Amino acid sequence: MPLSIDDIRLARDRISPHIHCTPVMTSSQINQLLGCELFFKADNLQKVGAFKARGACNAVFSMDSSELESGVVTHSSGNHGAALAWAAALRNAPCTVVMPDNAPQAKKDAVASYGATVKFCTATMAAREASVADIMAEQGATLVHPYDQDLIIAGQGTAALEMLQQVDSTVDILMTPVGGGGLLSGSALVVKQSSAQATTKVYGAEPEMAADAFEGFKSGERISTYTPKTIADGLRATVGIRNFAVISEHVDDIFLTSEVRIIEAMKLIWSRLKMVVEPSAAVPLAVVMDHPEVFKSKRVAIVLTGGNLDLEQLPW
Amino acid sequence: MPLSIDDIRLARDRISPHIHCTPVMTSSQINQLLGCELFFKADNLQKVGAFKARGACNAVFSMDSSELESGVVTHSSGNHGAALAWAAALRNAPCTVVMPDNAPQAKKDAVASYGATVKFCTATMAAREASVADIMAEQGATLVHPYDQDLIIAGQGTAALEMLQQVDSTVDILMTPVGGGGLLSGSALVVKQSSAQATTKVYGAEPEMAADAFEGFKSGERISTYTPKTIADGLRATVGIRNFAVISEHVDDIFLTSEVRIIEAMKLIWSRLKMVVEPSAAVPLAVVMDHPEVFKSKRVAIVLTGGNLDLEQLPW
Repeated sequence: MPLSIDDIRLARDRISPHIHCTPVMTSSQINQLLGCELFFKADNLQKVGAFKARGACNAVFSMDSSELESGVVTHSSGNHGAALAWAAALRNAPCTVVMPDNAPQAKKDAVASYGATVKFCTATMAAREASVADIMAEQGATLVHPYDQDLIIAGQGTAALEMLQQVDSTVDILMTPVGGGGLLSGSALVVKQSSAQATTKVYGAEPEMAADAFEGFKSGERISTYTPKTIADGLRATVGIRNFAVISEHVDDIFLTSEVRIIEAMKLIWSRLKMVVEPSAAVPLAVVMDHPEVFKSKRVAIVLTGGNLDLEQLPW
Repeated sequence: MPLSIDDIRLARDRISPHIHCTPVMTSSQINQLLGCELFFKADNLQKVGAFKARGACNAVFSMDSSELESGVVTHSSGNHGAALAWAAALRNAPCTVVMPDNAPQAKKDAVASYGATVKFCTATMAAREASVADIMAEQGATLVHPYDQDLIIAGQGTAALEMLQQVDSTVDILMTPVGGGGLLSGSALVVKQSSAQATTKVYGAEPEMAADAFEGFKSGERISTYTPKTIADGLRATVGIRNFAVISEHVDDIFLTSEVRIIEAMKLIWSRLKMVVEPSAAVPLAVVMDHPEVFKSKRVAIVLTGGNLDLEQLPW
């Protein structure tokens, strides 16, 4: 059975006792400035400060107790690692997180604070995956992938599911950032399989400096190796196989934006919405700023994906 | 008739079509760190980014149209000025705001963006008041004082009124920052005249570097001149006459905190609640950090008073 909106509804029922139903924020000043109506799903206020709590919680609460005894393992630039550590702790399961050594200090600290074992590796996909394979072999731990698993995609899709219920009529566009593609693929399934959202477009937003999903989407073939250089540390992963399949089928378009615009969008969210968001979370708003012709007079739903960053290391 | 909770209920009915009922936020991590249960009323998400929208709206919507034709005037370090400019614009009334020249740029810009005329003066109470008197004489404008008026106190009290309804049982302590005392006096009336909150203490939180309310409260005599040096720019005003009378009668205590602690508390709110707050808004949390013995195991309601500051000029 291919993954569907029914899996996302099941995920919502499974995780709702443990996660926050985060609010949807608006700013008349941002709307006026950009000439469209924007709705921001504030998953920076989610458990562990990121939507990643959704997928990790869905994966961990789908496992049985005997499986959990050998623990879980993942690789993550930060938020998925913290999310898995948090979810594993809820079920008293051991957890190991492999992190690239260039992850922000705040994210390294968060993972450790939830009681997980942290292992560092160099910042490439190959190094991450090799390190995880070692831990699986040594400990018999179960891999909870940061994005390329059905339970993760279903969990991440719950943000869109909630948001479309919270925004009191249909939206013209739903847009999320795309890194590994867990959130974008889950969101696309929700929108494209909801009869109420028949005319809603789903867009991905990606930094020019991490354009692997964009390039694969345009060429029809997934890019499997890419060296990202973006400030949006949550989007440095390469899009996953399952994710790419769903994105190719259900996403209407992917737009790119620059590093400078991401920082500008981030400041706009901080100053107008009064919300602390990390650079990755600002990428969709940066896309709106870069492509006014696409978004003019539209109702646009955006997921603010996270709020974890080093306050000492702001990019301005 | 002395000001009472009935005036605050009237204010709520008057302003509720125009302002946000802001959410109450919690953080299990902050609670764990500090050993008490904290509830944060997020008035940094209020119109104009500060609770000051409440009082200004109450004052402007209490005036009749002929009065409004000659306009309104005030002096303000920023948030009350923006709030009055915003409220006056809702009723198409002229508005002049006298601001100290050391107010943050973000606050100067905000006042201007709502269409008010801005006049700068040196940063003393005497200079502010002289400048306002000139404008009243020249234009026949009505003074909407930043804190020392009944309609302002009643408006600011609506934050506490809302919050006590939102927090689903009684709290042990309600604490607000104290600058001119509008918010603290309004909050004290709400708590002390609510039978449901019979055992709730009301505390003020003030920077050591702007301790005029504290000194007046302890000595029983209002301090009328004081030169504040705190980073908490919203609390540099000297406590008002009406405010001091209510505070003396109804507030249980006022606590001081240091500049370093205010910055630390501000970072804790940014990093854990993911909310952008200005230094003044962090003063009550700084007091909790400084006086653990007073707050241990208590349920504590705090008003996050505003979120307007220069993101380029952070104090860390």
